[in-house]
Parts: sequence; C-alpha cells; structure tokens
Amino acid sequence: MTGLFLTLEGGDGSGKSTQAALLEGWLRSIGRRVLRTREPGGSDLGIELREIVLHSRGEISPRAEALLYAADRAHHISTVVRPALARGEVVVQDRYLDSSVAYQGAGRVLDPGEIRSLSLWAAEGLLPDLTVLLDLDEEHARARLDTSRTRFDRLEAERSDFHRRVRDGYLALAEAEPARFLVLDATLAPEALSERIRARVDGLLHA
Amino acid sequence: MTGLFLTLEGGDGSGKSTQAALLEGWLRSIGRRVLRTREPGGSDLGIELREIVLHSRGEISPRAEALLYAADRAHHISTVVRPALARGEVVVQDRYLDSSVAYQGAGRVLDPGEIRSLSLWAAEGLLPDLTVLLDLDEEHARARLDTSRTRFDRLEAERSDFHRRVRDGYLALAEAEPARFLVLDATLAPEALSERIRARVDGLLHA
Repeated sequence: MTGLFLTLEGGDGSGKSTQAALLEGWLRSIGRRVLRTREPGGSDLGIELREIVLHSRGEISPRAEALLYAADRAHHISTVVRPALARGEVVVQDRYLDSSVAYQGAGRVLDPGEIRSLSLWAAEGLLPDLTVLLDLDEEHARARLDTSRTRFDRLEAERSDFHRRVRDGYLALAEAEPARFLVLDATLAPEALSERIRARVDGLLHA
Repeated sequence: MTGLFLTLEGGDGSGKSTQAALLEGWLRSIGRRVLRTREPGGSDLGIELREIVLHSRGEISPRAEALLYAADRAHHISTVVRPALARGEVVVQDRYLDSSVAYQGAGRVLDPGEIRSLSLWAAEGLLPDLTVLLDLDEEHARARLDTSRTRFDRLEAERSDFHRRVRDGYLALAEAEPARFLVLDATLAPEALSERIRARVDGLLHA
C-alpha cells in the first residue's frame, strides 16, 4: 500500500470543498486512510504566517509575501504531507502550487515561472499524483459568487477580468501537464463530478 | 549624491559591531547620512519571523527556515535598505547574503548555491558596493569566543570544525568576487582595521 497525493484547484465558489468531502467519504468507505489538508495554513507554522501576512502593521513586499507562502508550503509538505504519504495515506489537499502560479500570474506582480520554481524548491519537487481542476467560466463564476449584486460596476468588471486571468492560467497549466490534471466542468452536478473524480482516483489506487 | 551599500561579514567575535560603529562615526563626521541595520531582524517583520523561528513549538524544516530568512531579507531590502539608498544615505549593514551562503555551506544541509539564488531573488539582485570580511583564523576565534574553557572537548572540536568551514566559505566568496570584497585580518588593532575600511569607503564615495 502506498500513499497518493491528490490536489483540488479552481476559483473560489468552484466547489472544491464539496468535492474534497465527497472524495474523502468514498475513500474512507473503501477502507483507505485519508488526510484532508489545505494550503496556505495547513500547519501550525502556516497559521502563524497567515496571521502575519494578514495583520502586519505595514505593507509586506510582494517577494516577502511569496517567500512566506513558500515557507508555509515547505513546512507543510515536509512535516504533514510527506509523513502521511509515507504511512500510505491518501492526501486530499485544497490548493497547492498551481494556485500560487495561477493567482500570481493573474495578479501580474511576480513572474509565474519563478513562483513555480520557488514552490518546487520549497516542496523538494513534490508534485501531486492527480490534480482536479474545477473549471468555471466567467458567467457562472460571477453568478455563484455574487448573486445579490444587480449592477455591473467597475469593481465587478475588474473582478471578472481577474477571474478570467486566473482561469486562463489554470487551463494553461493543465494543458502543459495533461497526465497530472483532470479538468472538469464545475457546472455539472456535484454527484456527476464526484463520480468522474472517483473513477480517476480508483485507477490510480490500482495502478 | 548617491547612496552606498556596505556590509560587514565574519564569524561571531570578529569585531563587526566595533567596525560598524567606527565607520558610522567617521561617515557622520564627514557629513554623510548613515543607516545602521542588520539581517536577520532589521525590520518589524524580521523581528516577528525571528521570534517564530526561535520559539516555534515544533521543528521548522530547513527549507522553511531558509525561506523565512529570505522573506525577512526581501522585506528588509525593499522597505528599509532601498529607500535609504534612494535618499542618498550610506547603509552600513551587519551581515547579508554572504552570511547565509557561508553558514549554510558550513551546516551542510542545503546547497549554498541555491541559498545564494534564493537570496538574490528575494533582494531583486541587490549586491553591496563593498563587503568587509573580518577574517579570523581558528586559533584566534577560539580564544575570543571561549576564554573561560580549559578542556578541549568534543563539542569544542565540533565548534572549531564548524568555524573552519564558515571561514573557508567566506574566503571562497571573497575570492570569487575580489572587487566587492575587502578581506582584513581581524586580529589587527581596531583603529588599524578602521583606517583601511575608511580608505576603501572614501574611494567609493569619490568614485
């Protein structure tokens, strides 16, 4: 029995938590031990660092912030994820390096390629066995995130543009590593999505 | 008038603080504005990070620790050092990237070349105009650090070996960048050392 590292990616509101819970339930039902975790903030250190980033008195420089998230990643992977994988558990993780790359690329402050290198250095090269990308087009994303708004103002336009860039970043990452990614249309019913994820994970468990 | 970035390097007990104070005094006496600072811990964020590294409940993984120090560096350079240089001040800094590289190399956990790359990424490539290396041989270092000890035990032998590796690391860095480094014998009298540093800095101020 060997561990399996599964990550869920996608914008806010794409249904990652629901799918993580369904996947965890199914894995437990077939007798697998599961670790549900997330980044950032999946370790004690990560929680402290998140506090610092969110509540620092002054502005934190973009590189310092990226390095703090990378430190969280390094610590989380080496003290939480790798030990679980070594015990043969299935790690189901909400967000990992693809989030850093896609969001950094959309924010256009630092180079996404450098952020990827930094993440891989932090994690000593650990890549997921499978990354599920819950892909949501702009129209649906807007509808899910903001059902109460009626005016399409400048802030919303900016947010919509940012979502489009995050989505484009994710899709480019999936295209570059088709074997690692499972891209699913997040507008499908939760059970239909869960079934497709189960089928893929089942194949990996018996590989 | 343009700023100047000066760093002091060397093992503990090599006299960096004394030389930094003498240099600051001289610079002020000739009418220059001076910023005395240090790494790690030269900014609010750095102090918080240092607290985390020193008082974290669990062990912090080596890469996480290196990334936290790099975050401190990124923040310190972008919010403290670069603004001072832009105002035309002379920055006199106790320890910078050469410390990270020399100590990491001596500790033999992470690759020193990777630590250098990480530091340069954090600092957006900022190198000092001058780095003064206060070089102390093993015998003198031992004498200065531990005058009270009489037995040469295993711990002391280990410490001596570690000091030798740090020193070798520093000397290799100085050899690789002779134009940036001023290597001085730290056993010289403080005034003699200060005079040589002044001569070099004076040249840079008038360059």
